Amino acid sequence: MRATVTVSLKAGVLDPQGEAIKGALGSMGFEGVDGVRQGKVIELDLAPGTREDTVREMCEKLLANTVIESYRIEMGA
Amino acid sequence: MRATVTVSLKAGVLDPQGEAIKGALGSMGFEGVDGVRQGKVIELDLAPGTREDTVREMCEKLLANTVIESYRIEMGA
Repeated sequence: MRATVTVSLKAGVLDPQGEAIKGALGSMGFEGVDGVRQGKVIELDLAPGTREDTVREMCEKLLANTVIESYRIEMGA
Repeated sequence: MRATVTVSLKAGVLDPQGEAIKGALGSMGFEGVDGVRQGKVIELDLAPGTREDTVREMCEKLLANTVIESYRIEMGA
C-alpha cells in the first residue's frame, strides 16, 4: 500500500528556497507572484495493512521536524 | 489564488534521499517499508485570474527539471 506524506514549513518560518523561487520567477518576467512556499512530499510503499498511526510515528520521529514543520498524511490503496 | 505544483522524480531515476529515508526507517525498527521516493511541493500565491498555462510555463522553465522530473499542477481558489 501507498502512503503520501506532505511536509510544509509552518506559517511564520522563513523559507529561503521559496523566496529564491519567487525572486527567480519575478526576474524571468512572471508577474503577480505574491508568495512561494516550498515543502516536500514523501511517498512510502508500505506493507499491506500498515496503519496510519504507524505513518504518523514515522513523521514525528523522522520525516518532519515538528518544531518548524507540519505534515499531512494521505493513506492510499 | 493558489496553485500547488508537485514535482517528483521520474520512475527509474535514482533517488538517494528516498533511499536514505528508507534505510533510516528500517534501522529505527519500522518494518515493511518497500520503497520511498521524495519529491517537492511548491505552493504559489498568484494574482487572481492566473491561467494554468502560465503555471505550466513556470514548471517547464524553472520549477521542474523535465529531463528527470515530472510535475503535477493543481489550481486552487
